[in-house]
Amino acid sequence: MVIRYPNGKIYNASPTKISESSTPVPKKKREISYSNRGKSLEDDLNETNLFYLQQNLANIHKKPVPIQIVKVDYPARSAAVIREAYFRTPSTTDYNGVWNGYYIDFEAKETESKTSFPLQNIHAHQIEHMKSVECQNGIAFFIIRFSKLGRNFALPFQIIEQFWTMMQNGSRKSIPLNVFEQQAIEMKDGYMPRLDYLQAVKKFIADKNVCESEEK
Amino acid sequence: MVIRYPNGKIYNASPTKISESSTPVPKKKREISYSNRGKSLEDDLNETNLFYLQQNLANIHKKPVPIQIVKVDYPARSAAVIREAYFRTPSTTDYNGVWNGYYIDFEAKETESKTSFPLQNIHAHQIEHMKSVECQNGIAFFIIRFSKLGRNFALPFQIIEQFWTMMQNGSRKSIPLNVFEQQAIEMKDGYMPRLDYLQAVKKFIADKNVCESEEK
Repeated sequence: MVIRYPNGKIYNASPTKISESSTPVPKKKREISYSNRGKSLEDDLNETNLFYLQQNLANIHKKPVPIQIVKVDYPARSAAVIREAYFRTPSTTDYNGVWNGYYIDFEAKETESKTSFPLQNIHAHQIEHMKSVECQNGIAFFIIRFSKLGRNFALPFQIIEQFWTMMQNGSRKSIPLNVFEQQAIEMKDGYMPRLDYLQAVKKFIADKNVCESEEK
Repeated sequence: MVIRYPNGKIYNASPTKISESSTPVPKKKREISYSNRGKSLEDDLNETNLFYLQQNLANIHKKPVPIQIVKVDYPARSAAVIREAYFRTPSTTDYNGVWNGYYIDFEAKETESKTSFPLQNIHAHQIEHMKSVECQNGIAFFIIRFSKLGRNFALPFQIIEQFWTMMQNGSRKSIPLNVFEQQAIEMKDGYMPRLDYLQAVKKFIADKNVCESEEK
């Protein structure tokens, strides 16, 4: 019998299993966990994506964590067991999919900072990937949670790229909160969906269309 | 020093490593390999996608194989090692990305048959996923290689869906080669790119636009 939490998630009696979608535990010592304050951003996004999918609102998924497999055992009559494997650096962003004919591509990050988002959370290859997505007329953005403030923002890729380029030229290594307040779209936590980022996507697309018609 | 094959792929001196993108070895006994006749479809598609990316023609990637991680070791001063993990059934297709503002989503399959493509190669959840993609105005299709014939086809999702539905109603469990010859787009092997499936994508989109304008 499948037991479910009130939110519909399946209760898993085995505490040893780590979900495929879990972020790998970092190599360095962990920060103090504030997870009791609320679910992780990843959990909220997975629930939101499931809601979008079930309601036929969008088809957006988190990509599996890329793994370098070195050794696999094939016990008789059982499933193959991976015995040695390593986490790899993803070459793209974590989430992508389709909404209403638009290609959607984003990366989700949490920060403990109360004042700014550190750019060290982003890798150069993700910037390259998102540039290429924009070049193909996809919609690329970041979802950033200031976990201690309980605030969530959707920030268009262009803003991140501006700060990234400035950092390469020796400028500051983070994006201040007031840039989010002025140039990002703030998203409130909800029930269904948990984090309705499609509203931000619609706004990004509307803004793009305004830009394009102004250029003509 | 990085040593490269003439096609630009990096030579890996360690024969024990299995690439992240490799298809997991099936549990049952393997068919006789005809791999000397040519590269696998997956290799050809990965090379093609790399070519598209480098030439700014499209941004399309294979998703990592989903893994259920059970046990991870953290040796001192070394990278985390996954010590127990299992292959999971993917909930989506293997490839997705963006071309010219269009969301592209496909599954690639090889068959040893010379006469038909067995539908048992496709899972119900992949059909559901592709339905949802089409519903969101994405472009969903299959790339199918008849490896013994050396022939490659791009088949729109709608055709697969027709045969899938007929199978559910007790009809045949495979799609005959002549359906591919009549309703799919055949793709010749090339050098750069190896398998130029974007030509098929453009044809699918042109056909859709014709349908839509006829409906008006």
